[in-house]
Amino acid sequence: MKHLQNGGRPVSGWRLRLRQILFESETPAGRRFALVLIFSIILSVVTVMLDSVDAVQQTHGDLLYALEWFFTLIFTLEYFLRLVCSGRPLRYAASFFGVVDLLAIIPTYISLLLPGSQYLLVIRILRVLRVFRVLKLAQYLNAARLMVQAIQSSYRKIAVFLVTVMTTVVVLGSLMYVIETPDNGFTSIPRSIYWAIVTLTTVGYGDISPRTAPGQLLAIVVMLLGFSIIAVPSSILSVEIFQAATGRAGARSCPACNAETLESDANYCQYCGTEL
Amino acid sequence: MKHLQNGGRPVSGWRLRLRQILFESETPAGRRFALVLIFSIILSVVTVMLDSVDAVQQTHGDLLYALEWFFTLIFTLEYFLRLVCSGRPLRYAASFFGVVDLLAIIPTYISLLLPGSQYLLVIRILRVLRVFRVLKLAQYLNAARLMVQAIQSSYRKIAVFLVTVMTTVVVLGSLMYVIETPDNGFTSIPRSIYWAIVTLTTVGYGDISPRTAPGQLLAIVVMLLGFSIIAVPSSILSVEIFQAATGRAGARSCPACNAETLESDANYCQYCGTEL
Amino acid sequence: MKHLQNGGRPVSGWRLRLRQILFESETPAGRRFALVLIFSIILSVVTVMLDSVDAVQQTHGDLLYALEWFFTLIFTLEYFLRLVCSGRPLRYAASFFGVVDLLAIIPTYISLLLPGSQYLLVIRILRVLRVFRVLKLAQYLNAARLMVQAIQSSYRKIAVFLVTVMTTVVVLGSLMYVIETPDNGFTSIPRSIYWAIVTLTTVGYGDISPRTAPGQLLAIVVMLLGFSIIAVPSSILSVEIFQAATGRAGARSCPACNAETLESDANYCQYCGTEL
Amino acid sequence: MKHLQNGGRPVSGWRLRLRQILFESETPAGRRFALVLIFSIILSVVTVMLDSVDAVQQTHGDLLYALEWFFTLIFTLEYFLRLVCSGRPLRYAASFFGVVDLLAIIPTYISLLLPGSQYLLVIRILRVLRVFRVLKLAQYLNAARLMVQAIQSSYRKIAVFLVTVMTTVVVLGSLMYVIETPDNGFTSIPRSIYWAIVTLTTVGYGDISPRTAPGQLLAIVVMLLGFSIIAVPSSILSVEIFQAATGRAGARSCPACNAETLESDANYCQYCGTEL
Repeated sequence: MKHLQNGGRPVSGWRLRLRQILFESETPAGRRFALVLIFSIILSVVTVMLDSVDAVQQTHGDLLYALEWFFTLIFTLEYFLRLVCSGRPLRYAASFFGVVDLLAIIPTYISLLLPGSQYLLVIRILRVLRVFRVLKLAQYLNAARLMVQAIQSSYRKIAVFLVTVMTTVVVLGSLMYVIETPDNGFTSIPRSIYWAIVTLTTVGYGDISPRTAPGQLLAIVVMLLGFSIIAVPSSILSVEIFQAATGRAGARSCPACNAETLESDANYCQYCGTEL
Repeated sequence: MKHLQNGGRPVSGWRLRLRQILFESETPAGRRFALVLIFSIILSVVTVMLDSVDAVQQTHGDLLYALEWFFTLIFTLEYFLRLVCSGRPLRYAASFFGVVDLLAIIPTYISLLLPGSQYLLVIRILRVLRVFRVLKLAQYLNAARLMVQAIQSSYRKIAVFLVTVMTTVVVLGSLMYVIETPDNGFTSIPRSIYWAIVTLTTVGYGDISPRTAPGQLLAIVVMLLGFSIIAVPSSILSVEIFQAATGRAGARSCPACNAETLESDANYCQYCGTEL
Repeated sequence: MKHLQNGGRPVSGWRLRLRQILFESETPAGRRFALVLIFSIILSVVTVMLDSVDAVQQTHGDLLYALEWFFTLIFTLEYFLRLVCSGRPLRYAASFFGVVDLLAIIPTYISLLLPGSQYLLVIRILRVLRVFRVLKLAQYLNAARLMVQAIQSSYRKIAVFLVTVMTTVVVLGSLMYVIETPDNGFTSIPRSIYWAIVTLTTVGYGDISPRTAPGQLLAIVVMLLGFSIIAVPSSILSVEIFQAATGRAGARSCPACNAETLESDANYCQYCGTEL
Repeated sequence: MKHLQNGGRPVSGWRLRLRQILFESETPAGRRFALVLIFSIILSVVTVMLDSVDAVQQTHGDLLYALEWFFTLIFTLEYFLRLVCSGRPLRYAASFFGVVDLLAIIPTYISLLLPGSQYLLVIRILRVLRVFRVLKLAQYLNAARLMVQAIQSSYRKIAVFLVTVMTTVVVLGSLMYVIETPDNGFTSIPRSIYWAIVTLTTVGYGDISPRTAPGQLLAIVVMLLGFSIIAVPSSILSVEIFQAATGRAGARSCPACNAETLESDANYCQYCGTEL
């Protein structure tokens, strides 16, 4: 939180104390508060879930309604306290957790006008991600960082992959629409594309499935294609995680020729011979 | 496009200008045109898709019909202009994008004779692949090249894999046909093979599924087999991508210091700087 | 069993002999007993399974009932003999196999009071895991140890992965509940979350599937997400197994020749022979 | 075929010529014969398949019946000629392709006594595997050998994996049987185990699926388990293929201490320091 203290308005007295509790989970008080908070979040999400189950709603509807408002008011109070005690309220409000904290309370108020929207409260579950910060799981954060890094350095390959898959799926789905005709459940091209994705990803609901012989033949092609390309993101990620884990990700580029695959322990650029 | 300028008929004046717009997406005019083109392609594909949705077709059928013809005429004009301004019209017409450009307009004309064929217009989506060229996404192209390279150098293993899978599936499907008999939905050997592929690839529609105990036992074998061999293409590709990414496939050792992880395209040893 | 002999009460005479038979599968008598035991276990599990099949139950119910009690009494006797002849009965009773041995006999007795609980007898199957110890499959144990090691050293990454997946699934499932409404089979948020997991893992039963266009669009997102993240545990494990197999995780370099791929447990540099 | 010429009875004249045609696909005549043979095999398999399709059977049944007998007689003649011209008939008869060649003709004869068995003729498809030998696809054989080698050197790990999966599935399936009861489609323990495998392998037919809340909770556990362990065979194979491809499989063992993971380019044993 150093950036807040340095960059924000100086706070003192009860505000400083409050900030330690709300934001600084390394302090004992902050840690206790964070644990209580996470417990409340999970409880409130379970409340919302139970509220959606018809049988429970009919017997304990009032209790659940009361609990929902209870948690919402608590979280609203917490949100305003965070705004007040943070040196830079706007910065907090615009941060990832600031937005999530706000989204976690709004649906209850909207549900007064628009019944049903209270189910969106489950977005509160995102607040649980704080758990990584609270428990100071440096090792877990390292693991997460490694994976994020692997995904980042492979996002171009994954973009190429997804564009290719999407193009393929549009063509195959349309072909299936022409082959099977709406009589066999392929009622439109978008729906046929939906089928193609269901099949390619090997999900296979079976809500739509080809009935004619040519349709089944095309389905076989889609399946074998899916079976083969399911390997592609896996392979890409494997290589990236491997490189991230063994430090090849720390590859440098040559200042002279800009070649970018230099091993982290190289002394000379392997393309132009410049000493590094 | 250098090969066109060198090898083709020399063009000048408006043709040269037109060629820059149509073919050379590096020029400002070419870039603007390419972006407009891609936008039109996507719009026209969406038009075809909507046309296949019954509800939309009934309310906006005429508009969609008009739009389809509008896009087709535009693309037809573009196709002829490309033929005219390219120094070597035949070469363009025979190229991948030349064929796709033609296929992208033909179905509309055919649909006058053969209603329904206009849905094949979605093949236009392939034209979108130009996007990689237009946006000059060198990095993306690199990623794509890496993957194509990995697939190429492993296509023999994948061919062996597919032939083995196909042979297995024919034998298992037929066995299932004998075990389950047509009464349980396995009405013919081709259909049973279709079932075997649906199961082996873990798609599992459930439109056909074994009902007798021996049939379910065989299904378990097919599933565990699929579960095991799903790993094979993934493993092959992983290794290939890994080797393509690190250049280890043709790794050499330095004659001076014997370091052994030199990339196959290195000019200098990266550890001692010796020229190779 | 050395720790038992050292740490436990000294046993002699028939107890020592019994212990050799029951616990020490390296001795000829112990080996024979272990093989008979494993055979009995499998037989008794098959008995329980057949007992649950209605047709078999009606024709051979009495025989199966008798067999169940026969095996249970045998296993009960064996359990008490193990307690008696082991130098440290409590230690055995608290060990993994001690608990399994007990759980493998209790359900039959409970079924006198609570019919149906005898099906829990299949937990006996866990006793079969002794097979690895009996057959002295050192190589298999090595393989198992390698995999356990890979899983252990990657459990943090897998925990991060599972928490992320769970959070995602709660949000997506709830969104689907709001979109599809209970009329389309998504009767509650927990049930929608169940659907999201069925889809994300590419199982795809098809017992619940989206029917509206926005629902199918969200389903496509879930599927592509599952298709992509299915790669993550695979990639993590690949890297760990690779590192466990090659010992690279703690690779060192030789102080004399700087070769860098030395296994973590090497005593000598494999290139220049220097002692490490 | 050198081993035949060396070890078998010396053959000459028409037998030698015949052997060249039937067995030695490197000779021009042998190559031509092999191609014709493969074409006939595929044709005969298609005949059997079509015979099982009701609609085709009713219109062209007689033709298909005639074709079946035609191919069977041809293949029978070929089988006896192979026996005759091979120097060691028993050796051929006991070889993989010898057995397949026999199995490929027997069902037709059996079908005279036991109608329906002719569908087993599809086992003929295995004869197509000769294609790899015929086309002298050395590269393909290399690829196949690499994969077989990877599977062989990892079969212990895969055995451990399968035993663990099987034990898990028996326990989870039985638990599901107790939870869901036969009323919800889980009519017996074997059937519940079948469900567990269908779910664990992410096939997910949907012919049986849990309906109660605890059942769906257990199903989620099975799915996430399957989602995680699907990675295990993939990871094992990746590592093995990688090692086979990069020559680590060529690891040697130390003559002095029997350590077995020495790199192929090591000069000294890394455990005892012995010069290799």
